[in-house]
Amino acid sequence: MHRAASVDPTAVVEAGAVVHSGAVLGKEVVVGSGTVIGPSVSVGHSTRIGYNVVLSNCSVGEFCTIHNGACVGQDGFGFFVDEDGQIKKKPQVLYARIGDNVEIGANTCIDRGSWRDTLIGDDTKIDNLVQIGHNVVIGKCCMICGQVGIAGSATLGDYVTLGGRVAIRDHVSIASKVRLAANSLVTKDIQKPGDYGGFPAVPINEWRRQTVNLRLFSKKHSSRR
Amino acid sequence: MHRAASVDPTAVVEAGAVVHSGAVLGKEVVVGSGTVIGPSVSVGHSTRIGYNVVLSNCSVGEFCTIHNGACVGQDGFGFFVDEDGQIKKKPQVLYARIGDNVEIGANTCIDRGSWRDTLIGDDTKIDNLVQIGHNVVIGKCCMICGQVGIAGSATLGDYVTLGGRVAIRDHVSIASKVRLAANSLVTKDIQKPGDYGGFPAVPINEWRRQTVNLRLFSKKHSSRR
Amino acid sequence: MHRAASVDPTAVVEAGAVVHSGAVLGKEVVVGSGTVIGPSVSVGHSTRIGYNVVLSNCSVGEFCTIHNGACVGQDGFGFFVDEDGQIKKKPQVLYARIGDNVEIGANTCIDRGSWRDTLIGDDTKIDNLVQIGHNVVIGKCCMICGQVGIAGSATLGDYVTLGGRVAIRDHVSIASKVRLAANSLVTKDIQKPGDYGGFPAVPINEWRRQTVNLRLFSKKHSSRR
Repeated sequence: MHRAASVDPTAVVEAGAVVHSGAVLGKEVVVGSGTVIGPSVSVGHSTRIGYNVVLSNCSVGEFCTIHNGACVGQDGFGFFVDEDGQIKKKPQVLYARIGDNVEIGANTCIDRGSWRDTLIGDDTKIDNLVQIGHNVVIGKCCMICGQVGIAGSATLGDYVTLGGRVAIRDHVSIASKVRLAANSLVTKDIQKPGDYGGFPAVPINEWRRQTVNLRLFSKKHSSRR
Repeated sequence: MHRAASVDPTAVVEAGAVVHSGAVLGKEVVVGSGTVIGPSVSVGHSTRIGYNVVLSNCSVGEFCTIHNGACVGQDGFGFFVDEDGQIKKKPQVLYARIGDNVEIGANTCIDRGSWRDTLIGDDTKIDNLVQIGHNVVIGKCCMICGQVGIAGSATLGDYVTLGGRVAIRDHVSIASKVRLAANSLVTKDIQKPGDYGGFPAVPINEWRRQTVNLRLFSKKHSSRR
Repeated sequence: MHRAASVDPTAVVEAGAVVHSGAVLGKEVVVGSGTVIGPSVSVGHSTRIGYNVVLSNCSVGEFCTIHNGACVGQDGFGFFVDEDGQIKKKPQVLYARIGDNVEIGANTCIDRGSWRDTLIGDDTKIDNLVQIGHNVVIGKCCMICGQVGIAGSATLGDYVTLGGRVAIRDHVSIASKVRLAANSLVTKDIQKPGDYGGFPAVPINEWRRQTVNLRLFSKKHSSRR
């Protein structure tokens, strides 16, 4: 199903996959059934791509695993209102660059960049149903659990761990070695390594106090009524 | 790959796409590889549909962009327990109607209606991994950020902005020109335009006070121990 | 498009679907366009599978409905750091077992097991964009609303209802007949049937008190300034 694509003879393209023109598939790449490799996408040596994946406007490194249904490289969500009050789309023409040894979970979305390429560092692992907005830069060896959302232009250092369903506001920076508890919402830069949690996120001990105090306070208050 | 479909001669159906019988594709429509256009779906002039999209039981207007992996028109989540204690499915037989100039993000889901058609108004933009339940009606020029969830039969006016991960409870109505901060949970109707936030959502200034007070209160309390 | 698969003559495999070798499709199964049935997957009598679904490393019972874009049976998210500080993947080699009369929503993900099979009990209904981690065991007749996330190795009893966007921490157990309000976060075992809500989840009345008290407290406090 491919024409004008450069597919290494040791690569396997399964039945029902589509490889568009200009795509480059390295040695021993496997492309599962139903997957679409868009024009000019490059995939490094030994990367395994599951079923019904979409890769477009991106490069993927070596020894990666891309799980079923993941979408990499589509346009980000960037709009502005023009002088006539019309909603117009900002150009979304850069790339998503995926490092080596990266794992991307099922039905996860990673948008292409608008003012800088979206980057996923080497050895970073991303779970299912994660949203990574345009221009996000993620360092090396990060762990990003299920249903996390990282809004546009956020920056994560290396060895960052995001528990399930963590949300990161757009343009926020998070230092290396920060760990965020499940369901936290990060609204401001986090500059010191350590553990954080809550809504909005604060150092983890403070969040634990908030939770306990809210409970105690509510109990006291209700017994007085 | 299509038979008994009505495809304008200027429309492009890429390799690996499937167009079912009775579907109607307007002028200059593009259907990307791996996309499935279900029976009797109609797609207006100049709409661009990405890769591995599913359109079923729906109509899509003109000049829309549907990103990779989005699913429009599947059954909603409606069940009841019958007299024998069995879980039974309510009929889900109406449509999803998408206006003109609408953008729908990657892996976003929009269910078909059960008691009324699900509607997305003209010029509304929807980001990735958004869930829009059955019978939801969304007005014009709304902005719906990533991972938002709108439960069944909710109604949004025009120019509503939902920040990332906002959740709207079923059957709730939200007035035009309401803006909700990221991660808010809306449990009741919002009748006045303005900015809201929190869990559950309150006017934005009140939410800011709640957050600050909870933090101060916790600090005071812990220092007394 | 299938070879060495065992497909009942009454089953329908639509155009653009791929059935891998060793797969078994029972009587009157329907496999929609663009769907991939992985090697050795078995699908029971009268189950209907939508468009662009992926089934791998799993068995699906009878009379199920699997909606468009759902992914069942991919690897779970399990890693460890080895003695050289390298992130390594834990083996993910068991199955996902789906019971009878189960409904699985669009773009929902259910991972295969690592130390035990992932199980979805009979008559359980799952909405769109739900994440179910590896080794999760869910009982019978559960209702799991949109965007719920259930982390790895959690266990749910029978007749459990999870409102939209509920999150369950890994390894947590939830008793039968527990109902959780939308957006709750469950961080500890829940042993008694009943209604719960909040962040983290507490009995529903306590959560309502917390919400009211936080609001009152904030108002009092702000008027004093």
